[in-house]
This record gives sequence, C-alpha cells and structure tokens, in this order.
Amino acid sequence: MPRFVVIGANAAGMSAASVAKRRDPSLDVVVLEQGERISYSACGLPYWIGDEAKGPDALVSVTPEQARRERGLDLRTLTRATRVDPDARVVTTVTPQGREEAVPYDDLLLATGSEPHIPFALEALDGVFALRHIEDAEAIRTWLANERPRRAVIVGGGYVALEMTEALLDRGLEVTLVLRRRRVLGESFDPDMSDPLLEEVERRAGVLVGIAEGVLGEGGRVKAVRTQAGDVPADIVILATGVSARIDLAAQAGCALDHEAIRVDDRMRTSVPRVWAAGDCSTTWHRILQRPIFLPLALAANRQGRVVGENVTGGDARSPGVLATAVTRFFEWEVARTGATELEATVAGLRVASTTIEEVTAAGYMPKHGSMRLKIVAERGTGRLLGAQIVGTRGAGKRIDTLATAIHAGLTAQELENVDLAYAPPFSPVYDPVLIGARLAARQAAR
Amino acid sequence: MPRFVVIGANAAGMSAASVAKRRDPSLDVVVLEQGERISYSACGLPYWIGDEAKGPDALVSVTPEQARRERGLDLRTLTRATRVDPDARVVTTVTPQGREEAVPYDDLLLATGSEPHIPFALEALDGVFALRHIEDAEAIRTWLANERPRRAVIVGGGYVALEMTEALLDRGLEVTLVLRRRRVLGESFDPDMSDPLLEEVERRAGVLVGIAEGVLGEGGRVKAVRTQAGDVPADIVILATGVSARIDLAAQAGCALDHEAIRVDDRMRTSVPRVWAAGDCSTTWHRILQRPIFLPLALAANRQGRVVGENVTGGDARSPGVLATAVTRFFEWEVARTGATELEATVAGLRVASTTIEEVTAAGYMPKHGSMRLKIVAERGTGRLLGAQIVGTRGAGKRIDTLATAIHAGLTAQELENVDLAYAPPFSPVYDPVLIGARLAARQAAR
Repeated sequence: MPRFVVIGANAAGMSAASVAKRRDPSLDVVVLEQGERISYSACGLPYWIGDEAKGPDALVSVTPEQARRERGLDLRTLTRATRVDPDARVVTTVTPQGREEAVPYDDLLLATGSEPHIPFALEALDGVFALRHIEDAEAIRTWLANERPRRAVIVGGGYVALEMTEALLDRGLEVTLVLRRRRVLGESFDPDMSDPLLEEVERRAGVLVGIAEGVLGEGGRVKAVRTQAGDVPADIVILATGVSARIDLAAQAGCALDHEAIRVDDRMRTSVPRVWAAGDCSTTWHRILQRPIFLPLALAANRQGRVVGENVTGGDARSPGVLATAVTRFFEWEVARTGATELEATVAGLRVASTTIEEVTAAGYMPKHGSMRLKIVAERGTGRLLGAQIVGTRGAGKRIDTLATAIHAGLTAQELENVDLAYAPPFSPVYDPVLIGARLAARQAAR
Repeated sequence: MPRFVVIGANAAGMSAASVAKRRDPSLDVVVLEQGERISYSACGLPYWIGDEAKGPDALVSVTPEQARRERGLDLRTLTRATRVDPDARVVTTVTPQGREEAVPYDDLLLATGSEPHIPFALEALDGVFALRHIEDAEAIRTWLANERPRRAVIVGGGYVALEMTEALLDRGLEVTLVLRRRRVLGESFDPDMSDPLLEEVERRAGVLVGIAEGVLGEGGRVKAVRTQAGDVPADIVILATGVSARIDLAAQAGCALDHEAIRVDDRMRTSVPRVWAAGDCSTTWHRILQRPIFLPLALAANRQGRVVGENVTGGDARSPGVLATAVTRFFEWEVARTGATELEATVAGLRVASTTIEEVTAAGYMPKHGSMRLKIVAERGTGRLLGAQIVGTRGAGKRIDTLATAIHAGLTAQELENVDLAYAPPFSPVYDPVLIGARLAARQAAR
C-alpha cells in the first residue's frame, strides 16, 4: 500500500491529507503533528482572547478523533518529525513516548507552518507571549484571568497586533503598541491607505515609535519592554512581529529555499523528488507581481494543501496563485487589500496609475451609511487592474472581493466600470464606490 | 447653437443632460420635466415612508437651482411634453402657465420613465396609493400622519411591496400582502431562493393569495381590497403591482417598441433618427440572455443616460448591458440576484447546471455570523457562470457583486473557485461561501 506522509496537521496538511484519502481510499495517509490539537483556526485566536469568539473547541474544525474515524487518516499527534532522508524516503519521528521511529513514505508533504519571528534575544519571563498556536492563546487567557494585568504592550503593527489591540482593549486593559516606524500593516498597504487606521489606533491606544530591543523583568515576571525610545511598563507583552516559515526539516532534506521559505512550483513540488510543500512554510505565487512571495495566510494554505492532495493521487492540479487578498477589522473600521500596492507594482517595473476616492457605503440619506476610501492601482496605458486597497467603516471591507475577482479575470478599470453591481439604498449608492473608483481609475490610466 | 432636448429630469434624463453639457458647454441643453422636483431617489422613498431615511430634501441629489446654475441646463419644470414631430424636429410643450410652446431640437432624448401598473379599474378613493414619485411618498406620509390608519393592504410581492411592508410594519401598522400566487419577487428569483423570504414575510405580516380585483370604499375613503379570495379590510392600500414604461410620446413619434418599452440599440438610439431613449421607458440589453428586457432599475438608467450624453456630443459610447443585478433588504434578510435564473437560462435554451449551498457569512465561532443560501447557475459542460441568487442575513447580499463581476468577465465556476477572496473571521469562513458555491457548481456543470 503506497504511503503519503504529511508533516503538520493544520490548514495545508489536513487539506492535503483529507483530499488525498478521499480521492484514493487505498492510500495510507500518515499525518504527523507535534501538538495535541489539529485543524484549528489560528485566525480566530485574537477573537477568542478578546472573549468575542467561543473557544477553544469552537475554533477546531476537525478533531483528532474525527480525522481518524471519519477521514481515515493515520494521525499521530504529539509526534515530532526530526529528520527526512529523501534518498531512503524515510522520516524519522519521535513518538509521544520519546521513542525514535522511522516512517517510510512514497510522497512526503512538508506542511510545517510558521513560527513567530522574535526580533530580539528573549529572556525567559512570565507574561511575555507570542501568538501562533492555540496553546499560546490559552496561556494568554490564563495570564489575563489569573494575573489581571493592567498594562499591555504589543510589539508590532501588523494584522495580529491590531487584532490583539482590539482584544485587549475589549478586555479592559490599557494598550500601548510599539512600532518600528509610524505605520501599521507594514507594506501590505500604501501609507495613504493605512494612515486612517493608524489614526484610529492612536485614538484608542498608546503608540510608541521605536525599535523594541528586549523585555525587562523582575522576579521572573515581565515589567517593561525596552525600546530605543525608552522603556514601556507592561504587565503583559505580546510579540506580534510577524512569522517565519519553519524550514529546518526542508533545509535538512535539501529542499531549495526562496524568500526564506520552501521553494515550490505551481504543482507544489519542492526541488526534492517526492517531497511536496504547502502552507505557511512554502512560497506562494503572486499573480500580479509574477513572482513567488512568502504569504502565511489561511486560504492559500488550504488551497495549496488541496493541490498536493490531488497531485499525490494521480491528479495534475495547479495552484492558482494569490492576489494576497486580506481583510481585517479594527473596532468599527474595516481594511482590505488585494493585488499589488502602488509601491509593489512600481517596484515590479509596472507603469502605474493610482486613483483614490472617498465614498459612502450606502445611500447618503440612509442613517447607517458608512464611508470608505478606495484606492485602485491600474496599469498606465492599458488600464489593467493591478491592485486595490480599502479602508472604511461597516460594509467597506468585503467589497475587496469584487476587485479581486476583476483583477483575477484580467479586467481593465474601464471594464469594471461597466459591471452591473447591486444597488439598493441600504447597501450602496446608485454607483457603488467600486464603480466610481473604476471610472476614475480608467481615466487616470488613460492619461 | 445646436440643441439637445431631454424629456424627463430623473436618473437617465439628468445623467444625459449633465454629461452632454459638461462635454460640450456650447450645446443648448433643454430639460423638460412635468413635476416640480428632479433627480430624486425613487428607491429611497420606502425608507423615507418608514421613517428610516431622511426626506424629502435628502432624497434629492440635484435641485432645479443647481441644475440651472451649476450644470448650465435650461431646466423647465412643471412643463409637459405633449407631442413630438420627428420630421420637423420639434417637441410641443405645455408651460406651467398652460401655454403651448414649440421646442425645436437637434437631438431628443425620451427619458419619460415608468408609471405604476394598476391591475384593475381604480375607483377614486382616498387612502389608495401607488408609489412611484416623490409626491406619492409625500401623500402616503400625510395620510399616515393625519388618518392614523391601522390596517394596511399591499397589493403585490415585488421589491417595492416588500420594502413598503417593512416600512409600514416599522410605523406600527398591521400589514397584509395580497399576492397573485404564493411567491414573492416574481420571476427575478427561482422559487427555492425566494421561498425563505416568503416565509419571513408570513412570519411578520398577513399574506393572502388571490387576484386583487378592486378597492372598495365608503364616503370616498377606502375600506377594503376586493380579491378573488375575499375582501380584505384596509385603512390604507398600496398598489405595488409593478411599473410600465411610459411610451405614449415615443409611440406617437413613431418609435419602434419592444417588450412594451422603447426599442433601443446599444448606443441608445430609437428607430427614429435623432431620437434617443434611456432609462425606465426603454429596453435594456441582458448580457446573459442576449436579448433586450424591460428592467426599470436605477443604475441602468443612469448609465444609459450617460451613454446618450456622450453620443449626442460626438462620442461613440455603447451601453454595456445589464445582468439584472439587484439587492434588497427585508428586516434582517438580504436577497440579491444577478444574471439569469435557472428558469430564465433554461427558457433561453442554455444547458443549465444549478447548485445551491447553505453557508455561514463569517467564521462559525464568531457570535454575529449570519447565514446564507447561494444558488449558482452555470452552463453544463463549459461551466460558464450564468447567474446567481443569494438569500441570507447580514453580509450576504452584497456578495452578489463578486458573482456579477465574475459573470461579466465570462469566468467559469472553476475559475471563480480559484479567486483569492478576502478572509478574516468577522467577514467570512476561510473559503467564502462564493468559493464553496463555485467549487460545487464547477463539479455540477462538469457532470
């Protein structure tokens, strides 16, 4: 019986394992997972910490029991993979009992995910957390419940930092963000689009601009974050400074790397025969930039896993690549992006025309209408849509899907302007903001 | 100085007049309007009646004063056009003073709109209303304020009927809908998609199935609606039984008709030289059905007006046609549609595969997640997307835009399945319902 071994039982790994087993029930599918829980929503953790979402069980989409019984997977939790021998096609594992065990494979998927990127040497202090795994969220919740911290410091300004800011403000803490520079959401947004959000952050929380250099403690507990701009007192510290692909096994196995992640082709093959990679540990193809990027996002991971699941069972699936579409919420605010930013497109050598509009999200005479800023990046000359960014209030964020679809389809701004989008006073002005933006973008690109 | 005469000063007429004057300031643009107000949102009227939206001034996007002063239009309100002589190129008008006046034109736009379709001979009774013009809404508001009606009967089950049901329930009335058959939203939706909404209507209001035959009164006031299923007592009656194109002038001028509306080509030309038509009085090209339809909706009217405005000033604009996209709200419910229904596509001779899913609109562990039913109609064999319908709660409706964009772009279900849509727990499950629907639709169409 041929065997498919998967290392990592979250989005990519479980998608691959489940698809492969469904397509070929005769396949022996072994899933190695170092943790205890599998298939949980890492994206849901901040909302659980903020007591908005239920958890931890509700965050889990498949239990180990279900994986084994309903999906027929040979799932081995609390089992670490420590070595890959691609010539012998064997993975060395350490069982929960600490015993070393060789697991032969015909195909191997590295779905080892990512780990928090810690920007400084970290002293072992209680009250300092990174948020990556469900166990991290549990530890943060326990700390909040038992230690009743008053002052939180969040290092970083990305999606997780903002979501944790909202969560901890909701829990009644004072929050200070430590940012490397006066900007949130990094390079995902052009500054003119992320600045309104930064201002909202500043209205609700403290913001200190300065490089974080370490944490300071007393009696084994954190008491401050040291930054180049001074120390910031803290009863709890969240390090939300991004993640890195977990590539140790891949590197040891001889897989070529790219952007500090595992290099894959569009079938999710690594450079080593019969070794596949998917999810946060691998690169992802950016459809507009036309190059691989490191994009640790859930939807891409799930899709890449499916592609592997098909390909190890005789299929010939291709990863469609991504537009790096993303959305998040910060209190009443919604921000979203897709495709290339103005800067990304320019750096990629494209001739860029960018257009920004401010519009209402419903008819102006409706009391609950929100407002939004929409930026459209198009190719000068052709008008081909390259990217879009949205910042606004209720109803703004998911409009990015319309733009993502148009960009995926290769539409020009002029063509998007002609799409028959839905109008009714509670939902949009007669010309949806997307149409107004498209019209101006078409003109701008034609100049 | 060449002269462009426009009959009707709402969506289509004002768009055409404004665009034409902006493109060619030397053009003499005369706009004839029989009413007093112009450019108001007819779609907003139910929300104003329900005291949700502000009105009447807030519903007006351009005042006569602005039209004249800021846009440079020769706007003549309270002025009826009574005859068109296409050979002499003259419109006969009746001025506010009752004087007949000949207005010569070089180009003429018929933007005469639509009027309520009344399904029976109507006795002149107080308390019986159709809702088309802002004056109708004012009259309804006055009746509600002065007569304090308790029992409302709404004849019809289309968009306006549902919006008026919500408005009058919000104002504290008992509402009974009289439907020709047990169905809402007519042929716009397949019954499996409109039935959940019908059930919601039945939970909140009375529903009587029976053909309405007339209104009964006493002392000049309405007291009941007569139906084939019996009389329904009423202190106020709203006839929301659809609209008909206003085609008298066009017919008199010799314009060819189609679907009881003015036939136009994609440049919005009628069959009579130098006579154009746009908006509710004209036909609209349905991109999927590939035939003209009668679709009295605001966005199409505005766009058609723009096309005329460009074409009478030396442009060569084409109407992009429509997907008959629409959305409405009924209390917590949102319903939306685009493209062809299953029935429409089948009647049009297309080979149809239809797929329906039920999904959540946000991560299932988020407390405020809604749910939605999505139906996708695709072409059997090719998988080409033909249409979609949505019924669900908060956040469901505007997802139709993603489908409209995909359909406009000619995407297959398989291609839509691969689009990188936005995911975050407050906004969607990892795979947005649109993606889940697309995946199943692709499979279904391939069978």
